[in-house]
Amino acid sequence: METKVTPWDVEGSIDYSKLIEEFGVSPLFSPMKEKLTSRMKEGSHMIKREFFFTHRDLDLVLKDYESGKGFFLYTGRGPSGNMHLGHLIPLLFTKYLQDAFDVNLYIQITDDEKYLYKKDRKWKDIDEFTIDNIKHIAALGFNPDKTFIFRNSEYIGNVYPMLNTISKKITFSTAKAVFGFTNETNIGFIGFPAYQIMPTFFEKKRCLIPAAIDQDPYWRIQRDFAESLGYFKVAAIHSKFLPPLTGMDGKMSSSKSATAIFLTDDEKTVKNKINKYAFSGGQVTLEEHREKGGNTEVDVPYQWLKIFFESDDEELMKIKREYERGNLLSGEIKKVIIDKINSFLKAHQEKVKTVDINKYMYTGQLAKEMWKKKYLPKD
Amino acid sequence: METKVTPWDVEGSIDYSKLIEEFGVSPLFSPMKEKLTSRMKEGSHMIKREFFFTHRDLDLVLKDYESGKGFFLYTGRGPSGNMHLGHLIPLLFTKYLQDAFDVNLYIQITDDEKYLYKKDRKWKDIDEFTIDNIKHIAALGFNPDKTFIFRNSEYIGNVYPMLNTISKKITFSTAKAVFGFTNETNIGFIGFPAYQIMPTFFEKKRCLIPAAIDQDPYWRIQRDFAESLGYFKVAAIHSKFLPPLTGMDGKMSSSKSATAIFLTDDEKTVKNKINKYAFSGGQVTLEEHREKGGNTEVDVPYQWLKIFFESDDEELMKIKREYERGNLLSGEIKKVIIDKINSFLKAHQEKVKTVDINKYMYTGQLAKEMWKKKYLPKD
Repeated sequence: METKVTPWDVEGSIDYSKLIEEFGVSPLFSPMKEKLTSRMKEGSHMIKREFFFTHRDLDLVLKDYESGKGFFLYTGRGPSGNMHLGHLIPLLFTKYLQDAFDVNLYIQITDDEKYLYKKDRKWKDIDEFTIDNIKHIAALGFNPDKTFIFRNSEYIGNVYPMLNTISKKITFSTAKAVFGFTNETNIGFIGFPAYQIMPTFFEKKRCLIPAAIDQDPYWRIQRDFAESLGYFKVAAIHSKFLPPLTGMDGKMSSSKSATAIFLTDDEKTVKNKINKYAFSGGQVTLEEHREKGGNTEVDVPYQWLKIFFESDDEELMKIKREYERGNLLSGEIKKVIIDKINSFLKAHQEKVKTVDINKYMYTGQLAKEMWKKKYLPKD
Repeated sequence: METKVTPWDVEGSIDYSKLIEEFGVSPLFSPMKEKLTSRMKEGSHMIKREFFFTHRDLDLVLKDYESGKGFFLYTGRGPSGNMHLGHLIPLLFTKYLQDAFDVNLYIQITDDEKYLYKKDRKWKDIDEFTIDNIKHIAALGFNPDKTFIFRNSEYIGNVYPMLNTISKKITFSTAKAVFGFTNETNIGFIGFPAYQIMPTFFEKKRCLIPAAIDQDPYWRIQRDFAESLGYFKVAAIHSKFLPPLTGMDGKMSSSKSATAIFLTDDEKTVKNKINKYAFSGGQVTLEEHREKGGNTEVDVPYQWLKIFFESDDEELMKIKREYERGNLLSGEIKKVIIDKINSFLKAHQEKVKTVDINKYMYTGQLAKEMWKKKYLPKD
């Protein structure tokens, strides 16, 4: 399968070193890594283990933070289906960053984009997914007075005039080159990139975006004209993709149900999916496994532990060692990840049941301020 | 000069018979003409004298009216400059239609389009022209409880979700073919046609648009997909262009100040402009004029009298006869039009001073209803 990394499609085997070069982003080195991880109570393993691995202008963001100018966070979600672990993990990392730096966070729900993207998508479906997805996001426990979750279709009235300023900066030619639009792309979808860029101008501070690297093209366009409008070039910290259950290629996808653990999956489903579909780096026979050991590089259960579910370095090292030596079996490492995921999902599902999304959307302090704001054109 | 008729440019000598063929519109014949004019207390001469000369589905609109289903009117204004007579005349015709049929009217102020259109346009300017233009429009005396004047930048929140349904129906390829977009067109302007189409779906009745024929391309796109959304194909009644002061080619244009009488021009300015710039069909010398007579076909003062300012047929015939016979001199016919325009503008300018635009925008019955409505996608 050909490798493909666009904001809408990730396929094939991904060579992250090549992406660094192609996208022109900077690898995350020390001491910047330490500056982040030293403040984080949770989630720092996602940096240490290089799941978040590249950035743009993160050095400037940290400088602004240290000098008291501050910064803000922005991320988003396209509500085109049920959410899975691949969606949740970057959002959790964002929460850890918010906790670490105590900053404002804007979460854009691109109901418009997801409706526009496919001809046969019904608004009713997008609308339902939107409410559902917002509940799952709000359940992560962001600071309710410093987090604004907004639906594009609902907040448009507050941003539209300034949105036009952004649109004026982007020609079809640019949009075509960056997003692969064609003559058959509809005119709404062509216009959408302006709205995804808009929140980077919500405050006159640097904006830091934690997101998978496939979303980077949006930010390159923003960086071309942000300063001409009197704003900062957006900064970003990029993650790799959470590998799908089925192996290291591509990314977890709602449309390929066997590749994903959904946030609503029950214990039995999780267990069955992992036992049935999780790509194993173990050997074919028990004897062979005891002799040669498992390959952690391609073993999805191990990779998930490393990326997210086992934050304890020693514990992870132990698993790696035992698995590679053949002492830990394929079924056993699957059992470890099944238990981790189930305990995580159980707690999450409880929170979803009782979460109050209104705090984040309308009644929290930041939300209230945002509904009062009207973004006018910058000229 | 090459002839060009697009929604943004009208240049050169216009062959209206050719336009009928090119655009695929129907000439306005009897008895449809009589059905309109018999109800109109004012403005019927604009039909009888074929200034409004073609239509789409006007027969169906009249049928719906007669059967009690009703219809509604929609027109608009792009607030990119000061208004002149060329802008006002179709609006007045719209008012006469509203009076004749007692129907709802929606007037779209495309502040977004005008801001998006040109790179160096400042929002501040568009914003000022918008308020100014709305005053001039409101001063025409539309029914305040059946007329909704709305700024696109302000009303977007009420229409955006459904706007996306419209956008999904229009590919870049279609938009390019109809409007001549290029790779250098900005993505906001590319998206705009959806918003201009949106008001044709404000009610589940037939929508009739009185407008100059250059705006027709928008409606052809609407007619391609309206029924697939459960709405009616839009109907239209098209006018020719008010000739610029300087002669019969092109149309009156704010950007060529010598071609236009602005609604704010004072008596002296009107007099000077007409005496100086109005293209005359009179002969070069007095003797020659007395002998050969004037040519009313190209005489701008005569054409303006015919199109709008002299509604009395007998009076117009007399002027034509006397001018063509050489009894009425070029300066004398100019005097006639100067007096007509000045008396018209004087009354208009008085109304502008005291007009309450809030009735039309927010507090009238239709306006209030429209601010409560939210247009969701149609699927």
